[in-house]
Amino acid sequence: MESLKDFSKLTDLISEVENINAASSVLSWDQNTFMPSLGSTGRGRQLATLGKIAHEKFTNSEIGMLLDKLKTFEKDSSYDSFESSYIRHVRKNYMKAVKVPSQLISEIITNQSNSYEAWIKAKEQNNFKLVQPFLEKNLELSKKYANCFEYNHIADPLIDNYDSGFTTTKIKELFNQLQKELIPFVKETLNYPQIDDSCLKKHYPLSLQEQFNKKLIEDLGYDFNRGRMDTTHHPFMISFSHGDVRITTRYQENFLAESLFSTIHETGHAFYELGNDISLDGTPLFGGTSSGVHESQSRLWENIVGRSYAFWEYFYPKLQTFFPDQLNDVSLHEFYSAINKVSNSLIRTDADELTYNIHVMIRFDLELQMLEGNLKVKDLPEAWNSRYLSDLGMNVPSDSLGCLQDVHWFCGLIGGEFQGYTLGNIMSAQFFEAAEKGNPLLSNEIKNGSFENLKKWLEKNLYQHGKKYNGLEVLKRATNKDLTIDPYMSYLKKKYPIK
Amino acid sequence: MESLKDFSKLTDLISEVENINAASSVLSWDQNTFMPSLGSTGRGRQLATLGKIAHEKFTNSEIGMLLDKLKTFEKDSSYDSFESSYIRHVRKNYMKAVKVPSQLISEIITNQSNSYEAWIKAKEQNNFKLVQPFLEKNLELSKKYANCFEYNHIADPLIDNYDSGFTTTKIKELFNQLQKELIPFVKETLNYPQIDDSCLKKHYPLSLQEQFNKKLIEDLGYDFNRGRMDTTHHPFMISFSHGDVRITTRYQENFLAESLFSTIHETGHAFYELGNDISLDGTPLFGGTSSGVHESQSRLWENIVGRSYAFWEYFYPKLQTFFPDQLNDVSLHEFYSAINKVSNSLIRTDADELTYNIHVMIRFDLELQMLEGNLKVKDLPEAWNSRYLSDLGMNVPSDSLGCLQDVHWFCGLIGGEFQGYTLGNIMSAQFFEAAEKGNPLLSNEIKNGSFENLKKWLEKNLYQHGKKYNGLEVLKRATNKDLTIDPYMSYLKKKYPIK
Repeated sequence: MESLKDFSKLTDLISEVENINAASSVLSWDQNTFMPSLGSTGRGRQLATLGKIAHEKFTNSEIGMLLDKLKTFEKDSSYDSFESSYIRHVRKNYMKAVKVPSQLISEIITNQSNSYEAWIKAKEQNNFKLVQPFLEKNLELSKKYANCFEYNHIADPLIDNYDSGFTTTKIKELFNQLQKELIPFVKETLNYPQIDDSCLKKHYPLSLQEQFNKKLIEDLGYDFNRGRMDTTHHPFMISFSHGDVRITTRYQENFLAESLFSTIHETGHAFYELGNDISLDGTPLFGGTSSGVHESQSRLWENIVGRSYAFWEYFYPKLQTFFPDQLNDVSLHEFYSAINKVSNSLIRTDADELTYNIHVMIRFDLELQMLEGNLKVKDLPEAWNSRYLSDLGMNVPSDSLGCLQDVHWFCGLIGGEFQGYTLGNIMSAQFFEAAEKGNPLLSNEIKNGSFENLKKWLEKNLYQHGKKYNGLEVLKRATNKDLTIDPYMSYLKKKYPIK
Repeated sequence: MESLKDFSKLTDLISEVENINAASSVLSWDQNTFMPSLGSTGRGRQLATLGKIAHEKFTNSEIGMLLDKLKTFEKDSSYDSFESSYIRHVRKNYMKAVKVPSQLISEIITNQSNSYEAWIKAKEQNNFKLVQPFLEKNLELSKKYANCFEYNHIADPLIDNYDSGFTTTKIKELFNQLQKELIPFVKETLNYPQIDDSCLKKHYPLSLQEQFNKKLIEDLGYDFNRGRMDTTHHPFMISFSHGDVRITTRYQENFLAESLFSTIHETGHAFYELGNDISLDGTPLFGGTSSGVHESQSRLWENIVGRSYAFWEYFYPKLQTFFPDQLNDVSLHEFYSAINKVSNSLIRTDADELTYNIHVMIRFDLELQMLEGNLKVKDLPEAWNSRYLSDLGMNVPSDSLGCLQDVHWFCGLIGGEFQGYTLGNIMSAQFFEAAEKGNPLLSNEIKNGSFENLKKWLEKNLYQHGKKYNGLEVLKRATNKDLTIDPYMSYLKKKYPIK
């Protein structure tokens, strides 16, 4: 009884933190979608206050005391229970949060916002020097942050923030395996004749693209009573509660694939959170468990489902009715080839399914080198360019298209934010393979525009659990296998090269 | 020096409260504009948490101690100074806030949200009984709330929340004067031949209305870098900071006046807050000083400016280019008469400039009677209907079109929220008269689409001050007169009847 009281006290305290964090998310969504330009000063002030209060409330020593008192209760509850998972999750984050001095937190926040401003300018003006001092400061702060914890590798505490259960060593091993198999395969694929994707590069009016995308994700099962779709420069998924999981997308009037696959990608993220068990709503267990697993869902829907032949057998005729002038002369096979065209390129977010991972692994290596002290910030552009030449055969014409292209290092700590993209690709295939094993008719269902069973499988085996288990745990539970690159490589080899 | 430190400590504590309140406003705006329907449970949770934290932080005894320590500093600073106004304003609200037990606050919040839900149903089903118990509870809570304070009349503390400086007695006196002059004048006006307003009731496509309205308020000086305009069921103005003051409006495809005057009305509210001195941004002095004065600005722009002949001399040709089929055969005079048609009606928010005040005064009287214990909630519908018959000559066909039409009593305390509408009308004319006295060319400027000098006058004499002075103070400062109905009656008598 005493324990139940303590547990209920803990959930009361934590729910305040969750509600404040959700409120911050609403403010961020608004900032990225509809806020008038001169609202940013006030918005910064409001977000800073909410962030400060949430941090204060979360690191309140009362929470620490309750967690101590609840140790036996946690051990006596089944590992899979809501209570045990809740305490386990909160304890882990609490223990990390209290180790970081709040002074360091404010320094990090201040530098991040300055660094972001400087990055915008540096990228616009193709002038790395403008952001270099802020990036140096960020590297210093990232190291300071990591040094608040014990670790085997300095990147471990940073990686743990996004992909709990992973270490630098584990990811390096995995990426080495992947590189060994993927690089020769990419080269082989690139030797095939280049695919003509000009059918995607005709004029596609924005409003029609928007209408089609809305219809498309509704057919996939996205419920607009529990979400919305808006337009932003960088697409994202964001959620405020079980009943409010929103996505954004972006359009290019002269490139149809942009909005199509951004939209399906973000819908995949949204499905994950919409599929959380409702009992997790408003608790810290709500959401996706890690970057990698979250990305596995966006990539599963975007690539494995959304760029499959079966998928377009169903949707292509519908797409043609929206764009008869552009597509009636284009066969399904031509369209399918175009959306799966492989070619080396400069920009990660535009890369195809195969070369994408090379972009990610370059960044992962470079950030490790910076954190280890083996690469100075001032030498980053050169190191970047030489990797793009050796790994992707590309000459980087400017830093704006090179090491300044991604925002991550300039608006968050260095370390932890990139590996998830490739972990996600690897995991996406492992999840899909297991789903297919459970339902051999899966691709037939997709061909007929039925996604119900796939979603049910994912809900049962992954989505419902929210953050109850870490990424590796939930993958093992869902697929009966430890993480391996085999399903991913076998998926790719079955699909490519497209002839 | 010590005082400056204390003052800076006070502003630090209060700025947190202001930022939380602004965050709550963003959440409310989202709830009213774009939130998916099933987001409401989560949103309720988030707003409750923010409200609770803001209340806790505001009633923190440290603020009380600082206010005590700052008494001399306040007295030594000039009354008009930022510091003195700030302390005066915070002290007043603090002294009120700490008198209300937080238990009562939660009871009020809980009942309000239940009452609102019940009101929605009751209105839909035209069944007063469904909401009656909640309204009874609300009346009890409103009395309890008022009884936390000393007063001459039980409505005084409630009125003070919205129109500080006013008392029940003062408002009754004013309304009596107004009724004596207005009622016979309305009757006289209604004896004139009915105006034909069918030109407003043609088909006006929504998207064109929206385009015109955006253009119109831009011409008035609304800056979309500091705001936005969206569509909601009930139009409102809401602000989060000096750089983010938004409005909403609503459209009827078959009644042009709806969106035109809702838009100008809300723009008037927005001008007030956009015109606040930037030094007030993020402080409790930001915003409009009272309901009445706020409403004076929406009505000044909506009615005195926006329904004037001069205004449409400039804008009518523009409106005609948007709607040539609908308006090319309609003369400016016909249009002007139509937008100023006077007739008795059932719904306050649709009422014309003349009869509008009768709707307000009926509600004000009824809420006083309820608070005084002279009218039971169960007898409200009958009392309502008999006043509509006697004062407006209207038979109320259903409670949905009667005492259930306004949301106020069902989502806030009873008392304080209605008088501001008529105070605003009265004050609007007094402000405008003073502005005209300072600039005899005013209506000529309006005729030429120039609103710069009017806005400058309002900014200098009213807007910049935010909440530094209460409504009566700022009116006196701006117009050199105490509040009087004379400018309002003389404005109305000059304008009506339109022949």
